[in-house]
Amino acid sequence: MRFISQTSSDGVTEQLFTLDEVPGVLWTPEDAAGARPLILMGHGGGQHKKAPGIVAGAHRFVTEGGFAVVALDAPNHGDRPKTEEFTRIVAELRAGMVAGEDVAARLATMHEFLAEQAVPEWQAALTAVQALDLVGAGPVGYWGMSMGCGLGVPFTAAEPRVRAAVLGLLGLDGLAEAAAQVTAPVQFLLQWDDDRVPRAEGLALFDALASADKTLHANPGKHGEVPEFETGSALQFFARHFG
Amino acid sequence: MRFISQTSSDGVTEQLFTLDEVPGVLWTPEDAAGARPLILMGHGGGQHKKAPGIVAGAHRFVTEGGFAVVALDAPNHGDRPKTEEFTRIVAELRAGMVAGEDVAARLATMHEFLAEQAVPEWQAALTAVQALDLVGAGPVGYWGMSMGCGLGVPFTAAEPRVRAAVLGLLGLDGLAEAAAQVTAPVQFLLQWDDDRVPRAEGLALFDALASADKTLHANPGKHGEVPEFETGSALQFFARHFG
Repeated sequence: MRFISQTSSDGVTEQLFTLDEVPGVLWTPEDAAGARPLILMGHGGGQHKKAPGIVAGAHRFVTEGGFAVVALDAPNHGDRPKTEEFTRIVAELRAGMVAGEDVAARLATMHEFLAEQAVPEWQAALTAVQALDLVGAGPVGYWGMSMGCGLGVPFTAAEPRVRAAVLGLLGLDGLAEAAAQVTAPVQFLLQWDDDRVPRAEGLALFDALASADKTLHANPGKHGEVPEFETGSALQFFARHFG
Repeated sequence: MRFISQTSSDGVTEQLFTLDEVPGVLWTPEDAAGARPLILMGHGGGQHKKAPGIVAGAHRFVTEGGFAVVALDAPNHGDRPKTEEFTRIVAELRAGMVAGEDVAARLATMHEFLAEQAVPEWQAALTAVQALDLVGAGPVGYWGMSMGCGLGVPFTAAEPRVRAAVLGLLGLDGLAEAAAQVTAPVQFLLQWDDDRVPRAEGLALFDALASADKTLHANPGKHGEVPEFETGSALQFFARHFG
């Protein structure tokens, strides 16, 4: 793990790093000392580790929860090179969208392709970040919407260190098997008027999660219109499960 | 409004009262002085103003939110006499249940019968309680599950003083018209494995609420198994809308 830069503002210290050539960012309270819970945030499709929604959420998790937050550029996203195969998958997805097709299966293909690489990267990042004094081997949470959910479901299923996950804005396509292996508590967000994910598909993904403790939050609005108060609700959800 | 008794415990003062022969209870913080938001809680079918779920919720709303809480015995419930017509409606409902019928329409008939009387009683109670110094004409919320939702939807639709409502555990049957007139923010609770309300009917009631600001919370479990943390979530919902 190689730290590249460190800046602080509004009570939050931001450190950029790379880990085995994966670019990442770690946010901690400016006056941090000693161990604290860690949230891994997975960004959406076409976004990156410092997308505005990630930064805004991370700042609240740090300042209001006292948590550490880490985000990585997903494979083929942000500062990372794009492979030919990914470029082809995205081109097919876009062509399907333009043609007005139901692209759920194509989206699932893309997520599956990315998850194969992203899940072990996130596991390595957890290990590296938990070795830092100001994080430590405490509770771990995961937060990811849309593509961040498509990668987050297999990650949460595979990684026993994840004690609670906030997921959502995605349907069941391609995720049934992984969802049936998720046993950590989940708070699942669904946009009631989602223009990309059919309501029934989102409800089906929530239904498929094997977690005994799971809670669905549905709000009016389109895919990108999750209300601000859900960040506060996610904070409370993590705090409740971190004990 | 005639006060009958006053007791205090655990930081909560409880005053029993009658208002035009309707028995009610008012809970306030033990050290209350000056105005505060008011929550009206509507109990479930066969229950009463001091049912354990009402008392537990009221205590948290008072001690954690600093709110005043009022509950009334619904018509034909608690300490109130039962009319012949109500007795007949309940007998028909029970016979339907025993016969394994879908009783949604019968339940809607019962709620409609009760709401006609309960809505003006609750409006009168709001007026009377808001005239007290330690309540005042501040924000008003409504909380009611199951029958408390069946009466609460027409009440929230009819009463502009209700600024936010927590409703749930009921389906759309008989409530479409009133739901289309609910414009106050609503937090709606649905039990994912409800043994009395079909999931699709609960989702349909949430869908039918005209509120621009509404949020659905669904949790695993049967009708009576709403998780404890939803009381905290209701508190935060009210606090958010009381400003």
